[in-house]
Amino acid sequence: MKEADVVTIGGSIGGRVAAITARRHYKDAKIILIKNAEKVLVPCPIPYIFGTLKDPEKNLFSDAPFSEDNIDLVVDEATLIDRKKKTISTLEGDFIKYRKLILATGSMPIVPKLPGINLKNVFFAKKDVDYLNKLSKALDGVEDVVVIGGGFIGVEFSDQFRKRGLNVTIIEMLPHCLQLVFDEDFCIMAEDKIKELGIDIMTNSKVKAIIGEKAVEGVELEGGEKIKADIVFLGIGVIPNILLAEKAGIKIGETRAIWVDEYGRTSDEDIFAIGDCAEKKSFFTKKPSALRLASIATHEARIAGANLFELKRKNEGAIGTFATVIGDFALGMSGLSERMAKDAGFDVVVGEASGPDKHPPAMPDTKQIRMRLIFEKTSGKILGGQFCGGSSSGEIANILAALIQKRMVVDDIVTFQMGTHPVLTPSPGVYPIVNAAEDATVKLKQPQ
Amino acid sequence: MKEADVVTIGGSIGGRVAAITARRHYKDAKIILIKNAEKVLVPCPIPYIFGTLKDPEKNLFSDAPFSEDNIDLVVDEATLIDRKKKTISTLEGDFIKYRKLILATGSMPIVPKLPGINLKNVFFAKKDVDYLNKLSKALDGVEDVVVIGGGFIGVEFSDQFRKRGLNVTIIEMLPHCLQLVFDEDFCIMAEDKIKELGIDIMTNSKVKAIIGEKAVEGVELEGGEKIKADIVFLGIGVIPNILLAEKAGIKIGETRAIWVDEYGRTSDEDIFAIGDCAEKKSFFTKKPSALRLASIATHEARIAGANLFELKRKNEGAIGTFATVIGDFALGMSGLSERMAKDAGFDVVVGEASGPDKHPPAMPDTKQIRMRLIFEKTSGKILGGQFCGGSSSGEIANILAALIQKRMVVDDIVTFQMGTHPVLTPSPGVYPIVNAAEDATVKLKQPQ
Repeated sequence: MKEADVVTIGGSIGGRVAAITARRHYKDAKIILIKNAEKVLVPCPIPYIFGTLKDPEKNLFSDAPFSEDNIDLVVDEATLIDRKKKTISTLEGDFIKYRKLILATGSMPIVPKLPGINLKNVFFAKKDVDYLNKLSKALDGVEDVVVIGGGFIGVEFSDQFRKRGLNVTIIEMLPHCLQLVFDEDFCIMAEDKIKELGIDIMTNSKVKAIIGEKAVEGVELEGGEKIKADIVFLGIGVIPNILLAEKAGIKIGETRAIWVDEYGRTSDEDIFAIGDCAEKKSFFTKKPSALRLASIATHEARIAGANLFELKRKNEGAIGTFATVIGDFALGMSGLSERMAKDAGFDVVVGEASGPDKHPPAMPDTKQIRMRLIFEKTSGKILGGQFCGGSSSGEIANILAALIQKRMVVDDIVTFQMGTHPVLTPSPGVYPIVNAAEDATVKLKQPQ
Repeated sequence: MKEADVVTIGGSIGGRVAAITARRHYKDAKIILIKNAEKVLVPCPIPYIFGTLKDPEKNLFSDAPFSEDNIDLVVDEATLIDRKKKTISTLEGDFIKYRKLILATGSMPIVPKLPGINLKNVFFAKKDVDYLNKLSKALDGVEDVVVIGGGFIGVEFSDQFRKRGLNVTIIEMLPHCLQLVFDEDFCIMAEDKIKELGIDIMTNSKVKAIIGEKAVEGVELEGGEKIKADIVFLGIGVIPNILLAEKAGIKIGETRAIWVDEYGRTSDEDIFAIGDCAEKKSFFTKKPSALRLASIATHEARIAGANLFELKRKNEGAIGTFATVIGDFALGMSGLSERMAKDAGFDVVVGEASGPDKHPPAMPDTKQIRMRLIFEKTSGKILGGQFCGGSSSGEIANILAALIQKRMVVDDIVTFQMGTHPVLTPSPGVYPIVNAAEDATVKLKQPQ
């Protein structure tokens, strides 16, 4: 029987960062990380394996940090937690004793009950090297791919399939792609870019069945329309992997994820849960949230890893900061969209501004930024921002995240002391975050 | 005689933004902006005229915002302010009456008393289209350029001259280029990149004379060494243009810039001053600061423009946020370097981290980020950050600016909820700002 002060179950981004954080904070602790596969994929770049990167092997986590930080690796699958004995049993028959346990068991793609779902050449975004190699091989020599689901996953996979020369059709149930994140006009901008790249989009469309004899031949929509497909790829969301926790009698929350408190502890104080398997609360409403992001997993990992033997950090709830790229058009957001804010019951004021992302606009590769900020009317507090732009969009989303995290009000943001550079940023005179805040200031003061 | 509620003297970035801000806040005010030239150059991209942009005309401010915002333009030069009569006289003999006046008269390049300084082909970074066209023409058909001054201006001009195929030598008095901004190891990284581009650097070198008969032939250093030059370009700093203010008896501060209070008002409550002509205070020490940046000018303009008839906004002092690019290597910083913080008397803890700016590192065009954050030891408050990276560096500097502006402490930053994307940002597991804060947390807790 192995024994450790800290055991982390899960070798993906959450489990890694939790174990490394634990090492920073508890220098002498014996730490074990259990991962269920030798090779672990970095989650977010998975779509890029099929176009830009071309090979899953280019997208693996390195084990080097574990040896540098004296973290013992166990490649095995945890099958049972005995909370009384504080042991974990594994598939290979081992027992591992823990003082503190971190569950980072992640999530699994949703597999809908759909006729034909088990046909050959139906694929999901599974974080498994062999599985993705199979998808990669299946894509060679085919022509038509149908992607079911027009969220981030569906759109990014579609863009990469297209890069490979395939005909791609996205089928989305809702009126727009990316609709769970962006306001409608931003969704429409995104859809225009997707179409420009030669990808077909069918919105307001529900799949009735995947059709084919042994392998996929197409999909049939509820309206009866049939679309030819050699491959069907589903990206319609994930469900938390709570199996181990549930078997151990740990409390499951109302979103069917592992319930945790603000320190990352489950209903068992010696067991923490982080990442996709753990329930999230919204930063804004404190209500359970469906957000599932690698960045949120690392945020939770840094909290749980520090709190193991002494409560040091609190989780104030998930903000949700995203960015994506369609061709060379980027979109980003942090916090709430206008629609999300209104749905959550906030009375809002919206500020808007636009401008080139470099200056002067004659600079090569200049993209137009369009920025929308959402403020709470009564307090002037920022609730969210969304925008489109170029290659700096990921970090612009992070500026918004910083403003939101410290609950800045519109007056803080109009006097935000950004710096600028012709090749790297907008001009200071039209800096979109500041100008959108100025737009909101004036509106906040108008009687309405 | 013209008459207006608000008159702004200065057509560059500060004056523009002040006038536009005044319009946002005072809807019915009559606003006049006086600029001394029809064509006004955007300041920061001026170096790029000589390589990337190739033409000063591509780098002019548009007058469109003035007509959109109903701001009257006067192209003339203000020569005298009569504070009793509240009038401005102009070179063309006009008089303009004001209720509130904003001085945005900028700065001028420092012209050192150096033998040969008046020779043909000695140039400065003057914000004047005709002058820069002359420089552009002079650069055609020559071979050797000596750039005196290895600060931002000197380095950016050198990179652009090199892009044009010229042999460039930078002569810097101090031990390193960019030394007034970055810590030594970052300066050395920058110098290595400058040299890789084929630019020669001579540090610890003072120019004794510019030599030549009628036109420049070279420079002579204090050690006696002579360097051949067809063109000498000086970028050794600027002095505030305070002429009008001084003649009007307005108080001048200890740094020979126009003294202003935290609302942007000069010693005359109806006259505001902003941008390079106005004295700045450090955000950190509240002492006068030598910072001169277009972004700071716009920050001050947004404060003064809003405060004209009602005090609405306060200036908490200049943070100083920079970024620059050398070839395709970018450097950024916000706030204080380690050396600056120590010089200002702070007891500091430094956190460091590095990682690729995209993920996985196999992503095309991935650059390495190296991040250093400086925290005050007693409070844990962030005092500054500096880093190198790729095309997202300008906005990364702005994330630091946001963290500093809200005086975040190290515990806020370790739980910073950034978002990430493979093509746009580092991986969430190694996000350098967060990991540098984590590095500092651990050091802050060690007894030293």
